Amino acid sequence: MSVELARRLALELHQLPLIDPHSHINPHAAASKTLADLLGYHYYTELAHSAGLEKSQIEEPGLDPKEKVQRLVGKLGDLENTIQYSWLIEMCQVFFGFEEDRLTPHNWERLYDTAAARMAQPDWEEQVLRISRLEQVFLTNDFDDPLTGFDTNRYIPCLRTDDLVFHLAKSQTRERLEQATGITVSDSRSLSSAISKLFQHFTDHQCRACAISLPPSFTPGPVSAAAVEPALQNLLAGHPLSLDEATQVSHFVFWKLAECCSEFKLPFDLMIGVNRRVYPDGVYQGQDLFDQRCSLIQYQQLLNAFPQVTFPISVLASVSNQELVSYSWIFPNVVTNGHWWYSNIPAYIETDCRSRLQAVPQTKQIGYYSDMYKLEFGLPKFTMYRRVLAKALAEDFVIARGWSEERALELGKRVLRGNVERIFKM
Amino acid sequence: MSVELARRLALELHQLPLIDPHSHINPHAAASKTLADLLGYHYYTELAHSAGLEKSQIEEPGLDPKEKVQRLVGKLGDLENTIQYSWLIEMCQVFFGFEEDRLTPHNWERLYDTAAARMAQPDWEEQVLRISRLEQVFLTNDFDDPLTGFDTNRYIPCLRTDDLVFHLAKSQTRERLEQATGITVSDSRSLSSAISKLFQHFTDHQCRACAISLPPSFTPGPVSAAAVEPALQNLLAGHPLSLDEATQVSHFVFWKLAECCSEFKLPFDLMIGVNRRVYPDGVYQGQDLFDQRCSLIQYQQLLNAFPQVTFPISVLASVSNQELVSYSWIFPNVVTNGHWWYSNIPAYIETDCRSRLQAVPQTKQIGYYSDMYKLEFGLPKFTMYRRVLAKALAEDFVIARGWSEERALELGKRVLRGNVERIFKM
Amino acid sequence: MSVELARRLALELHQLPLIDPHSHINPHAAASKTLADLLGYHYYTELAHSAGLEKSQIEEPGLDPKEKVQRLVGKLGDLENTIQYSWLIEMCQVFFGFEEDRLTPHNWERLYDTAAARMAQPDWEEQVLRISRLEQVFLTNDFDDPLTGFDTNRYIPCLRTDDLVFHLAKSQTRERLEQATGITVSDSRSLSSAISKLFQHFTDHQCRACAISLPPSFTPGPVSAAAVEPALQNLLAGHPLSLDEATQVSHFVFWKLAECCSEFKLPFDLMIGVNRRVYPDGVYQGQDLFDQRCSLIQYQQLLNAFPQVTFPISVLASVSNQELVSYSWIFPNVVTNGHWWYSNIPAYIETDCRSRLQAVPQTKQIGYYSDMYKLEFGLPKFTMYRRVLAKALAEDFVIARGWSEERALELGKRVLRGNVERIFKM
Repeated sequence: MSVELARRLALELHQLPLIDPHSHINPHAAASKTLADLLGYHYYTELAHSAGLEKSQIEEPGLDPKEKVQRLVGKLGDLENTIQYSWLIEMCQVFFGFEEDRLTPHNWERLYDTAAARMAQPDWEEQVLRISRLEQVFLTNDFDDPLTGFDTNRYIPCLRTDDLVFHLAKSQTRERLEQATGITVSDSRSLSSAISKLFQHFTDHQCRACAISLPPSFTPGPVSAAAVEPALQNLLAGHPLSLDEATQVSHFVFWKLAECCSEFKLPFDLMIGVNRRVYPDGVYQGQDLFDQRCSLIQYQQLLNAFPQVTFPISVLASVSNQELVSYSWIFPNVVTNGHWWYSNIPAYIETDCRSRLQAVPQTKQIGYYSDMYKLEFGLPKFTMYRRVLAKALAEDFVIARGWSEERALELGKRVLRGNVERIFKM
Repeated sequence: MSVELARRLALELHQLPLIDPHSHINPHAAASKTLADLLGYHYYTELAHSAGLEKSQIEEPGLDPKEKVQRLVGKLGDLENTIQYSWLIEMCQVFFGFEEDRLTPHNWERLYDTAAARMAQPDWEEQVLRISRLEQVFLTNDFDDPLTGFDTNRYIPCLRTDDLVFHLAKSQTRERLEQATGITVSDSRSLSSAISKLFQHFTDHQCRACAISLPPSFTPGPVSAAAVEPALQNLLAGHPLSLDEATQVSHFVFWKLAECCSEFKLPFDLMIGVNRRVYPDGVYQGQDLFDQRCSLIQYQQLLNAFPQVTFPISVLASVSNQELVSYSWIFPNVVTNGHWWYSNIPAYIETDCRSRLQAVPQTKQIGYYSDMYKLEFGLPKFTMYRRVLAKALAEDFVIARGWSEERALELGKRVLRGNVERIFKM
Repeated sequence: MSVELARRLALELHQLPLIDPHSHINPHAAASKTLADLLGYHYYTELAHSAGLEKSQIEEPGLDPKEKVQRLVGKLGDLENTIQYSWLIEMCQVFFGFEEDRLTPHNWERLYDTAAARMAQPDWEEQVLRISRLEQVFLTNDFDDPLTGFDTNRYIPCLRTDDLVFHLAKSQTRERLEQATGITVSDSRSLSSAISKLFQHFTDHQCRACAISLPPSFTPGPVSAAAVEPALQNLLAGHPLSLDEATQVSHFVFWKLAECCSEFKLPFDLMIGVNRRVYPDGVYQGQDLFDQRCSLIQYQQLLNAFPQVTFPISVLASVSNQELVSYSWIFPNVVTNGHWWYSNIPAYIETDCRSRLQAVPQTKQIGYYSDMYKLEFGLPKFTMYRRVLAKALAEDFVIARGWSEERALELGKRVLRGNVERIFKM
């Protein structure tokens, strides 16, 4: 009974047009060109590598897309159980009329050709958006992105700031900053000006959020211009920084970002908990992991210092979800944001979603984002989430609390879309 | 089928008269006087504030109760999804005959008046207890509570000791201690005597437990009288203490409490894991949060040093629950105690309750306490727990292990009530 | 419906002959002789002790087995809810024709005699293996085990190395090492030679894995022979070691083990997260607990340094499971291994099993091991796991993803058995 009810609710939720509040879409090439673009998603390359496919097989320079697909398909059998595999099959079925439930060495080539033909249609991007009911998609823009040449009403700019906070010591980062702003960073004051100028540029181009991913140990605090100056001068002189100095610079820049979010009225997406390059021999984008020993208490100073800034927070470790629920329940400026990466599988989404629905004000929950690199992934990823959401609505609201299906759907639609509109001022 | 079975079991459990082993009831004003007493519970004020209602709106000095309710009701729409909202509606329906499922700007006033009339009945407190099947309710008494003027057989005194352990440096605390005991604290010896005297006073008045809430970092150990003396003298002289000194004093007092629990044969309720004033601009009682990085290994010395003291332990973070299960399974003197605060929502109670039922001796589980400030909350909070408990009994015992419903109910009744009687020697 | 489906799948999985990849079976006395061997399992003694039975009652020197059973049965009532109790009843029913569902002071003696008679049959061990469908069982062998006098094709040797890594400072350990290898350890070089010789001996006797259990704080790294030499000389001279020195020696030995695993092509089972002797007054094997603050990031260096070694990893804390899932999904040499000890109850296995099935390549999951000391426990422990696995297959694959039952069973059989064969090269 509850299975039927959940299916009915999922079907209703499926009708709702979506705004995807976080992706890595390239607006100049949003949709895929071949199956290699789908199978090249790090979920497949890293899982295939984890299952034994050599990195050199996957990342061979100059590898032909078709050959790449053939090699990956040869390893897909080992991944059939994964939820990521189910995304792939769903995309193939919905977008390319694939009628089987396994992609094998025997059937991939025909699918490859069918897909290539479909993807070559001039309106393929439009088709994908329409079939997926995606109206708007947030991007992840480098801070020096000119933000031109695409429709910023469809593809919403988002200022990604990892490089500024964690890689300012690289001369390349500073050069990009200078080119983007026309400001030569020579001290904390000019650094602040350059950052402000980025915010001006981004908000001039319909930017709706600032975002950053953060390691589990990050514990931001205010650093005065005077305090950061010595470390910053060392950095600008190209000297290697001590850990303390590097931390000071990171904190200074991070705090400046929060100040700009306040000034420019942008939500600041915090994606908390990733350790980069834990497995440096892994495939591209398949090297990062995490340390569950991380707490939102590390953000206490920040959250108190910027009551006027909304912080949509994602946590990488599912064990951090209860803290996220509790901090969102107490702090007016904390909002739950999606189900990120290693927590983005039904087993974890279920508990995380249920706890949020039970304890965080309904206006403070951003249900889901795709995190996708290619447009076709929006459909299966949102479908996965909608099923989990529908199950939670069915069991915890319709059955356990006696809500009508209509009322449960209202709640579902709010976390799926309504809150995105309101929180990001769409 | 399992839904029906769980409903049947919940209904049976509902018949059982309860002893509530932890609350914040004021025995001189146990029941509510107006709806403002219900909506003034920190769950509603903090959630409304989190959803955007200004603290000044909620805590305006001299605010009329009716006006306060109106303001809060105006924000309740944002909280309709929360389990706390469902408590409110259940109370209104059961106690005041409310027939709607939403409390809105349009219907609240009539309810307010109905409720006020009911609450004004001279036997309202008796009615609430009877309807809620509450026989006895544990209190949370300040250490200097005279414990007079109420029926200590109905409202069971419990010695709350946070102030002694964490706020002895405040002159006010020491003055209260002197007034309560007639002992002027001048050194570790007189401090010990004063504490003993409190235990004598409390046990003379039917006190059944000593209790304390503890921060995630707390790691108690024995401190000798000689070792604490310098720090204590600094404290008594009003000098600011170093972190080390403050810790020494806290540990000394805490250890003394455990010794008194042993001497006076009182269980020592440990409520582990709360960080106070994380959000200092929050509403009253809506400022505390936690750090999940906490372990029961921190209590290893304590648990080994006091084998004769029973420690009913509550953990604030659900991720600590497996440790609680495991420590209760190994240590004879550790008992699981309820589902506390941020873990007191069905999504977390479910897993926490199931794991306890599967791995902790049935005699060592205190199923639930209300933690309530006003008597009306006992009903919906215990109901929430009973539903989760009934579901666990249905699925994990009747269905999965083939138990009869009667046998499952026996287990349920034991954790709901039987263990409270035995562990607290009622 | 899903309950029926899960039952059907569990029944099918029950037909599959098993290889148990981790146990503590004594191959010279694999099966039990009396009920005391079953009730003497630490799960029962520690739970009975936790529920109030004195340790002296359980571990009285020279205690008659029958008397021991009588004493434990007297306390079993308190444990009836535990999953461990359900194992006991299942064994009694299947192996001894017990027809009741409770073991009580009134019915235990007849069962004791029946069981003793059955266990006295010359082919009892064969009967248990046949009824349990156990084909091969991995052992946990001391490093100085001669590995003779039993069928190493049925009972598979596994080199357990805790003593070498953590207790080399005990002269007894070094004497055992010398006796086993004929090598007198006088420096890091001879220590390395002795360890290599153990691997040669074990692999000569069909050993299929090296294994170790590790405390939550363990963070291995390489230590050169030169660097360890001073600490090692202190150790060999019988001097007490500083914490740093002890760590150096542990890390040196551990790294050498990993090198040998590489050289001798053995998987290295890591069982991560146990604190020993947390409750030193507990019964035998009922003294260990854990600290949930532990991360697989601590093994980053190891996993990168030995890409050619397979690491089947078990985690003691369920909160570590998401890390295990994620590290297995990224690192080719990490494999999930069973559900260990305090995580070995259905409430935790469920989520842990589901998350693995959803995100780790199906070839990289070792579903379960018994960890048993006596052969009779294989049946109820694997049955518990099979039920959870069948439920996950039913709900997450057949129902949620539309898989056929056959396909779901293939997946189940692979994690139950197929992967054991392949990963341990049976």
